[in-house]
Amino acid sequence: MTELIYEQPLNEKIRSYLRLEFLNKQLHNNFSQDHQQRCFYPLFSLCELTERCDYRTDVLKDIDRHLHQLPLWQQQPGENLMPIAQLQQELQQAKDTLQKSERFGAQLKQDRFLSVLRQRFSMPGASCSFDLPQLHFWLAKPWEERRQDYLNWCSHFDALLRPIGILLELTRATAQYTQASACAGFYQAESQRPLSLVRVKVDASYGCYPTISGHKNRYAIHFVQFAQQRHSDQNIDFQLAACT
Amino acid sequence: MTELIYEQPLNEKIRSYLRLEFLNKQLHNNFSQDHQQRCFYPLFSLCELTERCDYRTDVLKDIDRHLHQLPLWQQQPGENLMPIAQLQQELQQAKDTLQKSERFGAQLKQDRFLSVLRQRFSMPGASCSFDLPQLHFWLAKPWEERRQDYLNWCSHFDALLRPIGILLELTRATAQYTQASACAGFYQAESQRPLSLVRVKVDASYGCYPTISGHKNRYAIHFVQFAQQRHSDQNIDFQLAACT
Repeated sequence: MTELIYEQPLNEKIRSYLRLEFLNKQLHNNFSQDHQQRCFYPLFSLCELTERCDYRTDVLKDIDRHLHQLPLWQQQPGENLMPIAQLQQELQQAKDTLQKSERFGAQLKQDRFLSVLRQRFSMPGASCSFDLPQLHFWLAKPWEERRQDYLNWCSHFDALLRPIGILLELTRATAQYTQASACAGFYQAESQRPLSLVRVKVDASYGCYPTISGHKNRYAIHFVQFAQQRHSDQNIDFQLAACT
Repeated sequence: MTELIYEQPLNEKIRSYLRLEFLNKQLHNNFSQDHQQRCFYPLFSLCELTERCDYRTDVLKDIDRHLHQLPLWQQQPGENLMPIAQLQQELQQAKDTLQKSERFGAQLKQDRFLSVLRQRFSMPGASCSFDLPQLHFWLAKPWEERRQDYLNWCSHFDALLRPIGILLELTRATAQYTQASACAGFYQAESQRPLSLVRVKVDASYGCYPTISGHKNRYAIHFVQFAQQRHSDQNIDFQLAACT
């Protein structure tokens, strides 16, 4: 019995946050294990996303909103959240750092080694040793040395990724899981309060995954059979959390 | 003392072969170790390359050429090559398989799971669990089950990748390493016979990597300091093999 959690953002902001959180996890995977040149994929994706969009304004607004609301939380039991005082301190710190920081990844753009690699990594199979002899050289360095380089590169995104992690945890803590049931693989619901994130926890043994669609006040869940890649007509019991 | 080997193709065909060999190695890395969703990068790169170009004609021509030349090899000492009789058998087998096989990866293109993933993997950071709940489901399967899926997908390229490995080994065996020296980081040479591949073996402790350029009868090697990413003015001893 493996329970899997699927999350679906219901607005663009949370969609971006989840994407950045996902990339952050991918980066972290490379902190503890040597994944060779594969470590560059999440790093370059992050460079790309932060070049396209400066998430700072959204994040700062959200931090302020939470700093304002947090005292009211004292009464509510959160879901595995850190103590309110610590949260406030972390958010305040994140805000200060964010306000001072320059555009994310701007310095990495100046890095000649990374720039050449990045250009190549966007083409299929174009990071051979003859395309990138400098990568071939770098990959032969001891892992600890490469790890330090990598930690250094990733640290340029810390000011953005740290608060996003906290903001998502706060969003997730707005709703607890309740039991729900999809009749013939389908479930839908409405909400008076505008929602930002739907979370579905379902047992993998059903052989199904949920596809979730929706917007603010309304969402629908279709369960799809993995093996046939088509809609399931099973009745499926799952756990649901609709976060605001 | 780590000796690194850098290879530079001097024609388009060998360039393609090296690219495919590189991807083949990347695939193989995923046979023995669970690299999660990272395993899809080389697979999709391979799909992309084989869709753009059907390498069959080149490979078949090369196999025929070698089958014709191999008996003459009996006199020459190869570099860690398998016995001639075995080589002939492998090449003949590869030829038969290649002639019978349909376009590489054509079946994978019909695979709905892979098609959706492939589309997403070409966008930065677009393989989150909400982008691809089916991937989230697949990744939670036991590694042995995923490994079988992966082996099965990769097997579609066997008919192409196996002979390419042999052809490259035969190309590499046409020249043995000899001692060479780059004066102020620079070396150049000419060849009466048309070359297809230059190989440079150099000690990593120089802190340099070679950038090699050239064409058929002429090539030049510039050594670049990794730390400064600029031309080295050291005298560098290295080993050189110019393969035909």
